[in-house]
Amino acid sequence: MTARPRGAPTKENFELAKVDVPEPGEGEVLVRNTHMSVDPYMRGRMNAGPSYAPPFEVGKALEGGAVGIVEQSRDANLPIGSRVLSSLGWRDYAVAPGKVFRKIDTALAAPSAYLGVLGMPGFTAWVGLFVIDDVKAGEVVLISSAAGAVGNVAGQLAKRRGARVIGATRSAESARMIDEKLHFDDTIVLREGEVLEQLRAAAPDGIDFYFENVGGELLEAALATLRPFGRISACGMIANYNNPVPGPRNLFLVTPKRLKIQGYIVSDHNKRFDDFVHDVAPAVASGEIVGLETLIEGLENAPDALLSLFAPGRHVGKLVVAII
Amino acid sequence: MTARPRGAPTKENFELAKVDVPEPGEGEVLVRNTHMSVDPYMRGRMNAGPSYAPPFEVGKALEGGAVGIVEQSRDANLPIGSRVLSSLGWRDYAVAPGKVFRKIDTALAAPSAYLGVLGMPGFTAWVGLFVIDDVKAGEVVLISSAAGAVGNVAGQLAKRRGARVIGATRSAESARMIDEKLHFDDTIVLREGEVLEQLRAAAPDGIDFYFENVGGELLEAALATLRPFGRISACGMIANYNNPVPGPRNLFLVTPKRLKIQGYIVSDHNKRFDDFVHDVAPAVASGEIVGLETLIEGLENAPDALLSLFAPGRHVGKLVVAII
Repeated sequence: MTARPRGAPTKENFELAKVDVPEPGEGEVLVRNTHMSVDPYMRGRMNAGPSYAPPFEVGKALEGGAVGIVEQSRDANLPIGSRVLSSLGWRDYAVAPGKVFRKIDTALAAPSAYLGVLGMPGFTAWVGLFVIDDVKAGEVVLISSAAGAVGNVAGQLAKRRGARVIGATRSAESARMIDEKLHFDDTIVLREGEVLEQLRAAAPDGIDFYFENVGGELLEAALATLRPFGRISACGMIANYNNPVPGPRNLFLVTPKRLKIQGYIVSDHNKRFDDFVHDVAPAVASGEIVGLETLIEGLENAPDALLSLFAPGRHVGKLVVAII
Repeated sequence: MTARPRGAPTKENFELAKVDVPEPGEGEVLVRNTHMSVDPYMRGRMNAGPSYAPPFEVGKALEGGAVGIVEQSRDANLPIGSRVLSSLGWRDYAVAPGKVFRKIDTALAAPSAYLGVLGMPGFTAWVGLFVIDDVKAGEVVLISSAAGAVGNVAGQLAKRRGARVIGATRSAESARMIDEKLHFDDTIVLREGEVLEQLRAAAPDGIDFYFENVGGELLEAALATLRPFGRISACGMIANYNNPVPGPRNLFLVTPKRLKIQGYIVSDHNKRFDDFVHDVAPAVASGEIVGLETLIEGLENAPDALLSLFAPGRHVGKLVVAII
């Protein structure tokens, strides 16, 4: 990152820098990244102000999830050739103590899955459904950004639990993709001014739970259709990251409907990560859960990929940059 | 009520009707009301649509809290002269089975207190602080409508628990009343465009809990100043009862701050009413907690009193119509 953005970031906020790669010291490893994660929360970390993760530093590489191969090792636990996950982000090579890497099992799932369905996005979905809330079989669940990195997993996890799942997405292409690959019970395509109408048609008796990822008109429609004692888990309102807009006009419904809105950040729950993997990895390995992803090739294309997150409908599933 | 209002109710929605008072049957009593409650939630019940209490019926007396004296009795548990509480509402006389009345102890507190600090409003405050949430000593607590029926008790209860209490109110007169009678730690007077600034001055390190009763600009300021893991108990957003307005522009903060917003309706918690009385009545009897109230005389003035609830600043504390 060369400078903090004002409003929406542009390509001028980024630069591809060549630096020398140091030799690994005692206990350290050299990892060549093969896949890097591109996530909406990175936008928040480009600002200087306090957010839920420390701001990125100007003049340094962006941090974030990355998967790679150990090429030099001075840590006996991580022999050369080990596949590892780190949060060291947007770089070809990383040298760091072995303990900051986590070994991954590429026999179970492809390396990129550890950035998506079995990584932070999948964990975010799982926490919102089953730690922050306790979504149950038979409930009606609305998933925002249903074709997105978190949403596609959230919908599949809720469905696996026995809920009736309605996915909301912004484009007909995404909706078709959801229908073909994810088999939700219903899908709505968000068209301005018609969102509530579509949701009412998809859930004539209302919804019990809303997995909130976008804010805006869908949140307003969710508040309108939530049944008494309904719940919202909010892991983000992407519509508001760059430009805050007025909130829902019907927020007052929280009282008569006794709604609960709970915001959360997945990293607060890291101690549950192994429980998540234990629960979800077998379903990924068996193909019961299919993590949607879009691969973009080349480190130099990572800034464009991040910017595209805020122009919805241009990719499906988890956005991953393959460096190979 | 003669007709359901469209938008804000007017005096034309009400009528003073004379009806014959029946003789009490077996197990029934005749009660002459001395005090009647006037509450914001009554506005919602004037609408036809589903709310958290059934709609009032056109052509019938409004229901609501009332305190009275038993004048005829065919229920051995309620001898003539007993002071009783009911929810039979806006009428001089009520005839009903004894079991729908609750005996009150006027040695402990004045009859009108059972409509306020020891009645539904006080119970609403207690539930929002200690059932929906668990406000603790040392926390910073913001109370909306701090001079109102619920807010004045909420602030006093939070203070008694050891919290630092900031009251928010709409007029300098109410603020002066709070300072003189309630001894909160700080009071802010809501002036458009300056709410956040004032709240930041009163709570430079932020707030932990917001007792939400109004919505609008104060809710937005509360979201901006809530500390991580802050909580909101919402028993109403009176600003939106007649005219829904856009919600807070910063609702997305629920995620980075991990905020919880929980709406509630006090009647869901009626089984805790005795716990509430047990906790609060001694403090009322001793004068440690002083329920603010405004008395208006005459059943015929009840509609004006209800309408005045939506023109803030015109009364303080619990609004009670004395029929005597």
